[in-house]
Amino acid sequence: MIFRIKNVTSSEVLPQGIEIGIKDGKISCLGTSLPRDADTQVIDAKGGFITPGGVDSHVHFAQNNSPTGDNFTTGSRSAIAGGTTTVLAFASQVKTETSVIPCLDDYLLRAKDQTYCDYGIHLILTNPTPEIMSTEMPLLIKRGITSVKLYMTYEPMKLGDSQLLNVLMSARALGFTTMVHAENSDIISLITDRLEAAGHTDPFFHAVSRPQIAENEATYRIISLAELTDTPILIVHMSSEIAMKHVRKAQTRMLPIHAETCPQYLFLLSERLKGNPQDSFAGAKCVCSPPLRHDPKDLDAMWRGIANGTFTTFSSDHAPSTYDHAGGKKLGLKDGIMRYRDIPNGVPGVETRLPLLFSYAGREKDSRLSLQRFVQLTSSDPAKLYGLEGTKGNIAPGYDADLVIWYGEEDLKEGVTIEQKNLHHGVDYTPFEGMHVKNWPRFTLLRGKKVWDRDGGGIVGDATDGQFLKRGIGRIVIGKTGGEGNGMLPGERDYWC
Amino acid sequence: MIFRIKNVTSSEVLPQGIEIGIKDGKISCLGTSLPRDADTQVIDAKGGFITPGGVDSHVHFAQNNSPTGDNFTTGSRSAIAGGTTTVLAFASQVKTETSVIPCLDDYLLRAKDQTYCDYGIHLILTNPTPEIMSTEMPLLIKRGITSVKLYMTYEPMKLGDSQLLNVLMSARALGFTTMVHAENSDIISLITDRLEAAGHTDPFFHAVSRPQIAENEATYRIISLAELTDTPILIVHMSSEIAMKHVRKAQTRMLPIHAETCPQYLFLLSERLKGNPQDSFAGAKCVCSPPLRHDPKDLDAMWRGIANGTFTTFSSDHAPSTYDHAGGKKLGLKDGIMRYRDIPNGVPGVETRLPLLFSYAGREKDSRLSLQRFVQLTSSDPAKLYGLEGTKGNIAPGYDADLVIWYGEEDLKEGVTIEQKNLHHGVDYTPFEGMHVKNWPRFTLLRGKKVWDRDGGGIVGDATDGQFLKRGIGRIVIGKTGGEGNGMLPGERDYWC
Amino acid sequence: MIFRIKNVTSSEVLPQGIEIGIKDGKISCLGTSLPRDADTQVIDAKGGFITPGGVDSHVHFAQNNSPTGDNFTTGSRSAIAGGTTTVLAFASQVKTETSVIPCLDDYLLRAKDQTYCDYGIHLILTNPTPEIMSTEMPLLIKRGITSVKLYMTYEPMKLGDSQLLNVLMSARALGFTTMVHAENSDIISLITDRLEAAGHTDPFFHAVSRPQIAENEATYRIISLAELTDTPILIVHMSSEIAMKHVRKAQTRMLPIHAETCPQYLFLLSERLKGNPQDSFAGAKCVCSPPLRHDPKDLDAMWRGIANGTFTTFSSDHAPSTYDHAGGKKLGLKDGIMRYRDIPNGVPGVETRLPLLFSYAGREKDSRLSLQRFVQLTSSDPAKLYGLEGTKGNIAPGYDADLVIWYGEEDLKEGVTIEQKNLHHGVDYTPFEGMHVKNWPRFTLLRGKKVWDRDGGGIVGDATDGQFLKRGIGRIVIGKTGGEGNGMLPGERDYWC
Amino acid sequence: MIFRIKNVTSSEVLPQGIEIGIKDGKISCLGTSLPRDADTQVIDAKGGFITPGGVDSHVHFAQNNSPTGDNFTTGSRSAIAGGTTTVLAFASQVKTETSVIPCLDDYLLRAKDQTYCDYGIHLILTNPTPEIMSTEMPLLIKRGITSVKLYMTYEPMKLGDSQLLNVLMSARALGFTTMVHAENSDIISLITDRLEAAGHTDPFFHAVSRPQIAENEATYRIISLAELTDTPILIVHMSSEIAMKHVRKAQTRMLPIHAETCPQYLFLLSERLKGNPQDSFAGAKCVCSPPLRHDPKDLDAMWRGIANGTFTTFSSDHAPSTYDHAGGKKLGLKDGIMRYRDIPNGVPGVETRLPLLFSYAGREKDSRLSLQRFVQLTSSDPAKLYGLEGTKGNIAPGYDADLVIWYGEEDLKEGVTIEQKNLHHGVDYTPFEGMHVKNWPRFTLLRGKKVWDRDGGGIVGDATDGQFLKRGIGRIVIGKTGGEGNGMLPGERDYWC
Repeated sequence: MIFRIKNVTSSEVLPQGIEIGIKDGKISCLGTSLPRDADTQVIDAKGGFITPGGVDSHVHFAQNNSPTGDNFTTGSRSAIAGGTTTVLAFASQVKTETSVIPCLDDYLLRAKDQTYCDYGIHLILTNPTPEIMSTEMPLLIKRGITSVKLYMTYEPMKLGDSQLLNVLMSARALGFTTMVHAENSDIISLITDRLEAAGHTDPFFHAVSRPQIAENEATYRIISLAELTDTPILIVHMSSEIAMKHVRKAQTRMLPIHAETCPQYLFLLSERLKGNPQDSFAGAKCVCSPPLRHDPKDLDAMWRGIANGTFTTFSSDHAPSTYDHAGGKKLGLKDGIMRYRDIPNGVPGVETRLPLLFSYAGREKDSRLSLQRFVQLTSSDPAKLYGLEGTKGNIAPGYDADLVIWYGEEDLKEGVTIEQKNLHHGVDYTPFEGMHVKNWPRFTLLRGKKVWDRDGGGIVGDATDGQFLKRGIGRIVIGKTGGEGNGMLPGERDYWC
Repeated sequence: MIFRIKNVTSSEVLPQGIEIGIKDGKISCLGTSLPRDADTQVIDAKGGFITPGGVDSHVHFAQNNSPTGDNFTTGSRSAIAGGTTTVLAFASQVKTETSVIPCLDDYLLRAKDQTYCDYGIHLILTNPTPEIMSTEMPLLIKRGITSVKLYMTYEPMKLGDSQLLNVLMSARALGFTTMVHAENSDIISLITDRLEAAGHTDPFFHAVSRPQIAENEATYRIISLAELTDTPILIVHMSSEIAMKHVRKAQTRMLPIHAETCPQYLFLLSERLKGNPQDSFAGAKCVCSPPLRHDPKDLDAMWRGIANGTFTTFSSDHAPSTYDHAGGKKLGLKDGIMRYRDIPNGVPGVETRLPLLFSYAGREKDSRLSLQRFVQLTSSDPAKLYGLEGTKGNIAPGYDADLVIWYGEEDLKEGVTIEQKNLHHGVDYTPFEGMHVKNWPRFTLLRGKKVWDRDGGGIVGDATDGQFLKRGIGRIVIGKTGGEGNGMLPGERDYWC
Repeated sequence: MIFRIKNVTSSEVLPQGIEIGIKDGKISCLGTSLPRDADTQVIDAKGGFITPGGVDSHVHFAQNNSPTGDNFTTGSRSAIAGGTTTVLAFASQVKTETSVIPCLDDYLLRAKDQTYCDYGIHLILTNPTPEIMSTEMPLLIKRGITSVKLYMTYEPMKLGDSQLLNVLMSARALGFTTMVHAENSDIISLITDRLEAAGHTDPFFHAVSRPQIAENEATYRIISLAELTDTPILIVHMSSEIAMKHVRKAQTRMLPIHAETCPQYLFLLSERLKGNPQDSFAGAKCVCSPPLRHDPKDLDAMWRGIANGTFTTFSSDHAPSTYDHAGGKKLGLKDGIMRYRDIPNGVPGVETRLPLLFSYAGREKDSRLSLQRFVQLTSSDPAKLYGLEGTKGNIAPGYDADLVIWYGEEDLKEGVTIEQKNLHHGVDYTPFEGMHVKNWPRFTLLRGKKVWDRDGGGIVGDATDGQFLKRGIGRIVIGKTGGEGNGMLPGERDYWC
Repeated sequence: MIFRIKNVTSSEVLPQGIEIGIKDGKISCLGTSLPRDADTQVIDAKGGFITPGGVDSHVHFAQNNSPTGDNFTTGSRSAIAGGTTTVLAFASQVKTETSVIPCLDDYLLRAKDQTYCDYGIHLILTNPTPEIMSTEMPLLIKRGITSVKLYMTYEPMKLGDSQLLNVLMSARALGFTTMVHAENSDIISLITDRLEAAGHTDPFFHAVSRPQIAENEATYRIISLAELTDTPILIVHMSSEIAMKHVRKAQTRMLPIHAETCPQYLFLLSERLKGNPQDSFAGAKCVCSPPLRHDPKDLDAMWRGIANGTFTTFSSDHAPSTYDHAGGKKLGLKDGIMRYRDIPNGVPGVETRLPLLFSYAGREKDSRLSLQRFVQLTSSDPAKLYGLEGTKGNIAPGYDADLVIWYGEEDLKEGVTIEQKNLHHGVDYTPFEGMHVKNWPRFTLLRGKKVWDRDGGGIVGDATDGQFLKRGIGRIVIGKTGGEGNGMLPGERDYWC
């Protein structure tokens, strides 16, 4: 069976009129007037852009350590409805566990045969013992788990500099990709304790308790540790211009420092934490870390980082705490008292990620990034960074036929208003409620199979469609290892590295 | 007739084993096991990388204003032998001419039916009168001349700030692309006069007479003028880290400031200007402007700009003054007296450009840029910037089948040593004599026709193969117009723009 | 005769209770319980701070080239009433004059025996011919005229880069101090012409016509030329943060780049140019160049430069065009049409300069600079920079007894409101009308003579008190010559300097 | 009794010919021809400069935690021989002590009645418990102990971010001055362990184990914490340009961030750690932390920081481990095995500090700082920062008559070569052996008493001359508190501070 799609109009990617041939779930060829026979199925793109299926490299599904509205089934259902065909979710080590294998096996079972899209797993390391790093990490890599996430904050998960360094040295040796949540834990604790003592515990104070300096300091620190050990990293969910500048400077120096931002840091401000007259606790819906920032200038800065190449990935950080149900956001509201530190962190967004960014992609006057940057940020570059190059993130022969077909200009003139009632996740709200986007995925194809058909039934894929992605070693997208850092003699690192 | 090429191994661009189908001079499809019949001609890439034909957006062929060793025939012959299938050369207005049309027609005749590769023409404006800008530039754009070059130095060509601003305002209105040679003329004159008075006139003093501050100041100034008028520019042949930093900072701010560097600024230092025991005047061969710099750190910085994305184009600035023949470099040697200011500026390099850079592209330990950056810098991005997107600079269906097939690892293990005797230009030396490169174009295809076959006769194309490229409006590759600059009120520019 | 002042309370400068002994117009000693006899006159400082007499190194009195409300008599009368005992005014070369001596003699006559305070003269060079620079400048220096001012803008005065360089080379050889008005002339002309064509000619458009980029570009350029020639400069009346940053960076590198700002750039915004309901042309009163900026952040930035040491001098740039009289600001209002380009530039301020800044000096919570910085900026550093070290700008034995005695806290609790009716200049308005200052000079002493006694008759000096200051060679206050700049080889400059 | 000194020639400080009157140990007046009677003693400065007595704000005398060659007697004897009249030494809390009072009393006894110069005490906090900070620190401040030192490295002393923040919050409330040793401890541990495992333990590897990145990261971090809490700090003994740049940038923003450097970082490079053919362990003499750096550019950078105002204090960090005696540097040499981590850190330098810097002060071509900067760095600014303003660090009436009289040009034409045999400390070597200085203190006066007379017996003071300095609250020398940092809302800090 061969699928073909005509009228590919992504002038940025391919000249108009090119067809994409699909065979056995992979793209077999691109060309003009591809041969077709009686069996050939054709999907007409009808003048809409076609982009590679989204790769959301930062989602939380079915994690133990946070109350959750989404398991892999509901989360991935939401993903494909929003054009995302690959998600990378987390398995999270419990600090007391001396082996990460059982944990990993457990998380893999949570996804297996119950996921709508392809998925890979990152490992959250909360206790990187020498044994785990030297013995288990090589095994994980063989099994396609080629990335870890480290926290510099959150009491149950945070690592000290010494632990961070040890993981980086291990990454240097083994090649896995290292993600870092960069906020200074002690700063946050100090302010939180003092806010609490002063009775300032409404959701808004979540933003006060995690000032930009906390993100900025930790960002600079982890870049320093990465430079010292000459190892690539990705700093997740950046929110502050001051912190972002360190990334840009490092990149200018060709250090392999990558960064990610998320929709919430492009669109939402801390005023959202103040709730509304009907529900003073509603701000809890927007409690995430780093927090929403105060000033529209911060949003502008993140957009600039999106456009100028500072960010390598644009992820949802989908964190599915429900608002109304037990164990969700309302943990922060007890006996009428709001206490922000008890509110589970995070906002949902796996479904809205692509439409929100796509609305600003292109060459219109109000565009903020090119279509290529859109594709890089949402699909190609996360695929490369996390070891999926050659399979995901590109429209080229040999790649998986994961595609998003958007509406043509004529077919969705009025755009779409984001409404919770139309979304497919398991969470009971969206922080983007009421926002208007210009376009929405009309079709989503996963390895050649149509899994989302907005006008023809919505979800048309199955919860068993998704496959585990055994990933290879990720590739450095920005910068290069091997540089001599800041005052070191040539070869100085060889004495100890 | 259909050409097909198998074993495309550029793993960076396409998965291994993809074939490129060619029909009527254009790429018709990419795919696995493309259908073929008896007439199908096949070129086997034998494991070598395939890259898009080189676009050298900065060459001087057959210009009046400099003694020249190359006309369009010899220059373009040299181009294809080095993998370049498109050149953009210059027509140069004489300051006293009040119309640029005759000049342009004259230069077009110099190329027509006597060029081995495709070519476009930039217009050097030395006297941008209101009439030329308002009346003639629209005509030129219709004829596919969509770019101009401006000089901030050289007495017969330089423009003052007021003239620069007027051209930028015109570019803003009409959309043509503006190239700028940025060196402060008065600084150079001051030093030159004083060096002359002190008897320091050997070729080495060419470098002393044009210090980095001259390039730096002019670079900052033209960026300021471009920001003021909210107009894209490209700064040609950058050589200094201090100047390059301004470009990077502007790009960080998303200003549409592009920059170019050239092989000489990656490989050669000012010591080359000192000649040798056999020939004290031999330094004249390396007299170019900006001059070669003193310190290896400057070379490193340029390489960093190549790798981190600061530079958009990598051109040869092929300037074909012969060394021994009358009217060439020896104009600077009279009665045994060396006088650098009389030496025609520039070095040849259209043929060596691609091999020199390709030697450092890839993922080896000693690589300095990725293969994608190589393709972007030498082909895709100049094509986009100068209005050839959709036709040149890409391996995709619909594009011209301009291709370079490099040797596979097994077939050219020892690499190639650059020697003047093997080159195809009309100049009698190369500044890169004796340098070793890892690879060399095995085949060059121009619109599907094999024009260079290194092992099968060398030049196999004809001097009539090249076609004039009627270019469209160039596209901004970096940054975006529409920003409010530095202290302006929103919309302030509307009062006068 | 010996004067003594007790209760010196400037704890920043001297421990409380110190007396200042004065003899023959000079400070003879500082100490506790100085000996006194029957003839000893004592002025009791009554708990007020004592600071050195103000040195206003940038005032325009009696100049030909601008319609003026102040000659040396009225201007210097205003100076002493505001605590300024030394002014440096300008003699301005007419471009067609091939000798500057007659011009200078003429200006000296305008001041001689008709000035209330001591004065020196800067020379404005509008046509720095080789003869003037080589022959006349040494003569001027012998006569104590040891500083020049150069304009990068204003048609009748502006110098091109080549002329700027020549003056800097001369300054390098002779040691005189070079002041520069840094705005890009061509940018301003372009915008002005286009604004005029569009009918935007109200005073507010003066600010639009001289955007920060114009100041920024010229600032960077003149710093570049100064670095190239390794010569100190002072950039006058800075108004923009972006431009100021270049100064700070140069200072960090130890380049001898000095800068000045003025009261108008600390307190006033471009909205002042919009006039008022009663008088739509009233904005003309605030037309000065560089123009008032749009954003309070620019004011903050200038305050930061004041406090962190970026600025070396704080001057009034007193430019005394009257508002109502013929030949003044109303030149810009003809037949009911406002035309900002015809409005004489500049604001008066020689009298209000010290009180305005002093209000923010100290260690109160709302202070913005220390008392020492106040003294440095308004007195000591301009004295050093312009060749008056050892004579002016310090309270130390041997220095001229030029002193300002401020009110003690108890004696002027309510502060002072600035009102035109209380000022002593010849201009008919002050741009600072209605502003409140915390203190005002109670007494001003010029070489030991009381010339201003606010509570005892006001002006008590005579118009013949002021003496011409034959200045020495100024001293570099910030940075150092002799550095190797930006990519130059050690000693490279010696080839041509 | 009145002392008088004539021929004060420090033209930078006072006009030539001024006399300094001294009475009761204090400066009573400055003036020309001061009255004298029969009892008046006169010291003739003979044309030499007079500077305020040195304030060395960072010396280690008689500390428990490092083997020491100097107690207060020998250390202070060395101080006065080098022109230093005030030292600030350390009392060091043992981590297990829950009260610092006994420790402090103990250290005070070590100094009392056995010190040649005046002295104050800083407290090293290694365990800043809430009780100590809230209860004991106010008591210490009453007793004149108004400064603390914190370590970010060294296992027995280092504080984590949480502890650092708590001390800063306490400093904010109480006003004491906070010194910080900024190096990242975990970086150093990682490298040290790995170097040891690889057998790289010679003294040179001390420099490898503490790369600039360790200093840089910790510097940025402590600046972040200080900015967050809006509290002044001083970063001690800086050695790296990259770290210094953060200080400069903070100062540009007017943050109250101060920094110190020491003679070793101006003059010595890591090659000194390599020992010599006679004694391969001799490098141990130069083991100090941060370590000596590799590149002369680092020395240049420190000199730039000295000159451009980045550094507020220039101290010796006199750390008196002997080389040959037991318990000294040779702890790092056991059984012929060199082990750098066992070498006591630090170099002696209290006596050579002033002459070394003075040699580069002035306006000669090879000078690197002005005489004023010399006085600020070595005397006035440490006095201000550490609460001695009004008493120490200035030549003005009311100040202690602590003076250094240097040789005039005629009297020490050949300068002085530094030799261990001529020094007065208890250590058996100087790292500056053989270095040449231009001048040396001829006389040192402590509160009017001649204590050092180089040509008249050397040490002429007594070990009981020195008095304990009960210091006041230090003053912010650079920057200002009260700023809103990096993305905070106005007043945001009030919620928790």
